[in-house]
Order: sequence, then C-alpha cells, then structure tokens
Amino acid sequence: MLRVRCLARVSACGLSPRAAPRPAISISPTRKAAAGCGLRWRAMGSTSAYTTSCDKLLFRQLFEKESCTYTYLLADVSHPDKPAVLIDPVDKTVDRDLSLVKELGLKLMYAMNTHVHADHVTGTGLIKGKVPGVKSVISKVSNARADCLIIAGEKIHFGDLFLEVRATPGHTQGCVTYVTGDGPGQPQPRMAFTGDALLIRGCGRTDFQGGSSLQLYQSVHSQIFTLPEDTLVYPAHDYKGFTVSSVGEELLYNPRLSKDEETFKSIMENLNLSYPKMIDVAVPANLACGLQDLSAKPAEAASN
Amino acid sequence: MLRVRCLARVSACGLSPRAAPRPAISISPTRKAAAGCGLRWRAMGSTSAYTTSCDKLLFRQLFEKESCTYTYLLADVSHPDKPAVLIDPVDKTVDRDLSLVKELGLKLMYAMNTHVHADHVTGTGLIKGKVPGVKSVISKVSNARADCLIIAGEKIHFGDLFLEVRATPGHTQGCVTYVTGDGPGQPQPRMAFTGDALLIRGCGRTDFQGGSSLQLYQSVHSQIFTLPEDTLVYPAHDYKGFTVSSVGEELLYNPRLSKDEETFKSIMENLNLSYPKMIDVAVPANLACGLQDLSAKPAEAASN
Repeated sequence: MLRVRCLARVSACGLSPRAAPRPAISISPTRKAAAGCGLRWRAMGSTSAYTTSCDKLLFRQLFEKESCTYTYLLADVSHPDKPAVLIDPVDKTVDRDLSLVKELGLKLMYAMNTHVHADHVTGTGLIKGKVPGVKSVISKVSNARADCLIIAGEKIHFGDLFLEVRATPGHTQGCVTYVTGDGPGQPQPRMAFTGDALLIRGCGRTDFQGGSSLQLYQSVHSQIFTLPEDTLVYPAHDYKGFTVSSVGEELLYNPRLSKDEETFKSIMENLNLSYPKMIDVAVPANLACGLQDLSAKPAEAASN
Repeated sequence: MLRVRCLARVSACGLSPRAAPRPAISISPTRKAAAGCGLRWRAMGSTSAYTTSCDKLLFRQLFEKESCTYTYLLADVSHPDKPAVLIDPVDKTVDRDLSLVKELGLKLMYAMNTHVHADHVTGTGLIKGKVPGVKSVISKVSNARADCLIIAGEKIHFGDLFLEVRATPGHTQGCVTYVTGDGPGQPQPRMAFTGDALLIRGCGRTDFQGGSSLQLYQSVHSQIFTLPEDTLVYPAHDYKGFTVSSVGEELLYNPRLSKDEETFKSIMENLNLSYPKMIDVAVPANLACGLQDLSAKPAEAASN
C-alpha cells in the first residue's frame, strides 16, 4: 500500500503529521442557528499518498466529460483515519470516484454539493447507497434534501483540515463556495471550490432556479474576490480545458465579473442561452441529492 | 497585474525568490554527444501568479477534449523573465494556451513534445509562428524535426527550474518522459510528464510507430517506476477524467504495468484496438512538429 513519504522540507502546514489526531470529521457551526451536523464520526483508514500544497492534504481533481463537471476529492492523509470529502460528485462517475477513494485508502465521510445542479445528476445519493455512513451535504437555502444542511460560516472538518462555507447565491439561491481553512496547518495558498458562482473566465447563468445577476455579482465580489489573490479557484465546470485559476487572475481577466455591476447585469441579460437540456431531470433529482431517498428509483426521483 | 504573494511559510524550495537569477532558459547536455540546444535565451516577463508544490513553480494542466490530451504549462515565476515551457500543446488549443501565457505574464521559451503523437496534431509549429523565439523540442530518436533534438540525460532549464529527459520508448521509439529536477529549489514531490508511456491506470498502445510492449515495460519499470513513489504522474492523455496519479499508485494499481513482463506482453498483444483515426494526418504533421516548416500549409504537411 502507499505510504506518505517524508518530504525533505519543512512542513508547509507548520504542524507535525504525528500530532495527536482530532476526530476524523465534523461540521462545526459558527452561528447559534446553524443547522449543520454536529456529530463527529470516527473512521478507519489504512493508506495514504503524497500531498501538494500542504503535507496533510491529498487532493484530486476529477472530470466528467459529458457535462464538463469537476469533482474534487480532498483528504487529510496525516490523520490515521484519512478522512475524505467529495465535492460535486456526478452520478455517472461514482464508481470511478469510489474506486480511487478505496485505492488511496481514504475514508469517505461527506459527499457535498455546491448547489442544486441543473446540468447533471449528483452522485451523492448513489454514494450513500454504496458507502454506508457517508453524509450528504448541501446548503439549507437550496431547499434540497441532505443529511447536513449547512449555512454560511460553518466549517466542515475532515481530520485537521477544514472547509469554510461561504454563501455565493446568484446562479441559484442556494449556491455556496467551500474554501479551505485559513491559518496554520491549512493548505497554502487557499483553495476555493466555487461551484457555478465563479467559473474560469466566466460564471454560471442567472436566468433560472432563482438566479439573479445582481446577487451573483455581489456574491462573487464580497465572498470570493475578497480572498487573497493567490487563492486557487476550482470551479464546478470548465468547457475550454482549464483546470484551475486564481482569484487574482479572475479579478483581472474574468470577462464578466471584472466589469462594473451594471455592465455585468447587461452581459448576463443578453446571453441568449438555450434551455438546459438536463434541467428537467437534474433539478428534481438533485433536490433529493440525486437519490437521497434510497427507496426511490431514479425515474421516480426524476419525475418529482 | 498579478503579483506573487509572500506565503506565510518557509519556502518549500529552500531558495530565496530574490536570489540572483540564472539565465532564463537553457538545455544543458550531460553527455558529450548531446545534440540539444546549447543556447541561452533571455526574455522579459512582467507578472506572475501563485505556486503550488514549489514557490518558484507556476503549473497549469490544460485539457483538449476531442483527443483527451493534456498540455502542461510550467514556469519559474521567481525569475524576473518568468520563463515558461509548454509540454504537448495541441494545434486546436494553441490560442487558449498562448492567451494564458500572456495573461500570466510568462515568456514562453520551449514548446516540447513527449513524442510524435498519432492522435492529434501538435501545436508547436503554430506556436512558433505566433511567438517568435520559441524553440520546439522533441527527442532525437523520434526522427522528427525540431529546433532542439534532445536525448536522455539532458536537462531543460527554465529559470532556476529544470526538467530531466528520460528515454521511455515502447509506445514509439522516440518517447521521452520529462521529470522535474531533483534537489534543492526544485518541486517536491517531483513531477513526471510521461507522455503515452505511462497513463493513469493504463499505457499507450504498442502496435504501431515502432512500438514494442517489451521495450515499454522495461522503459516504465527502469525510468519511471524507479522514481520516488510520491512522484506525480502527469500523462499526455486521460480518457476517464483523472488528472494526476503517482508512481506509488501506478506501481500498485496499474492494471497492465503492475503485472510481470510476460503478462504485460500478453495483455498488449490482445487489446484488439482499432486503427487510430487521426494517425494518417497526425504522424506526418508531427514529424514536422505540427507545422515546423512555417512555409508549408497544413494540407501539405498532412499529405506528406
């Protein structure tokens, strides 16, 4: 099995990987009204692999070609349980994702969505059926079903790492951006999983699902563009073959969101996009986290 | 313009980004018979961006959807010239790649190929026409035309970073793997750009272009699988949506190359693959580095 190699450099995280481990995973509310899961799970992992920007972090970006969706796998491989989260899994690539999780010796704890997708069916429901104990996560504002309905300000812990929840509505009412933690031991630079709020040199459309161009503009400018410029931007989709950007790049070169609010609104109102071909299947299914109710068949979920 | 942020951690590279810069780029032969470019170019850059595993390195992975090809952009953003290289650019995505190079304020020095591709036309010729001064690079053994015909053991420098050339024939005679340098100041973990020699959970076919399953097996086992297990594997293609693997993972889980030599040979002999649809266009063009001779029109190059 794979083993973490001791890199010949000072830990980028500033913490010893052999420090006493925290519980594998939890969501910590930072507001009294937080509706997130307060439970803490422990799990058993066995192997690990290399890391990139942080010696603790195992990170993988995965692509679903048909809907051009990115799924992200993050794990704390310094923790004995190797707790992991999947962001925006797709139903069609669940088996690929779970095989990788198994091969890397990770313990998948959360299957999270940035929002109720309209272009593909989330894999969270299927994952729950295949890996008992995994909790689905989506924002409370999305009005979708999930085990954990998170709100802005909450932190989703996996081992010693965590993701912050930032509300970034505008593409849909319930869109959130997950941002890796700030502080010692967390990945540097930070990483923002922006869903469809901010795409590389683009953004999600705002003409359905409670979308609002004004709200999207304010979301991105207040919640994402205020992050350090070197923050890595990992969107839910890319259609041109880009895999990552940075806040600094998008501030300068995003052809929509680098403009003023009025210009942005005008751009978004004149996109003349066609009706999303998957929306009538995807949205009803995704409101139930794909197949959140495992007793429901796909056809039933889709016809809700 | 983007500026490198001073990360609140000890440099993973061990060298100050403000150290006296080396010449922007060069290829240094390590054998007397080396046929690579000995010239050193200087260039002017202006901006930079974040880095990942090494504070000097800017790294981007780019995808061409039709042929499922990955193009890689690497630059030393600690060097005032911000010298950059592109590995395996595709003709169809040259404008995307060059826009990104420009936005990031990089000075593109080398457009490199891992081998003579059979499934797409390289972008090196187009790049040379659009960015004067860029040098095309391919292995001498490939018998293709390029400005720099490199051989195993050579190092391709860009700023204070470099790539080692390793001969990994078997998919084609001239296949090489480019590996980031070993030692202080170089990315950690190392990164191997394996072309079609080693794919994620797979490998390139060996039934044309001088391919040999025995040679491929020996290449991968002697030149790639001997690298540290945390070495990141970045292939020229992926068809399932994986973006990266590691040597350790492929040693364990590659369904072909983790087997013994005889089993591998048998697997490769029984793939029953169809004739590559692009081969009759791509190979003649790529033997001239896409459009190496800029006076030749695409149709002429393709009909050679």
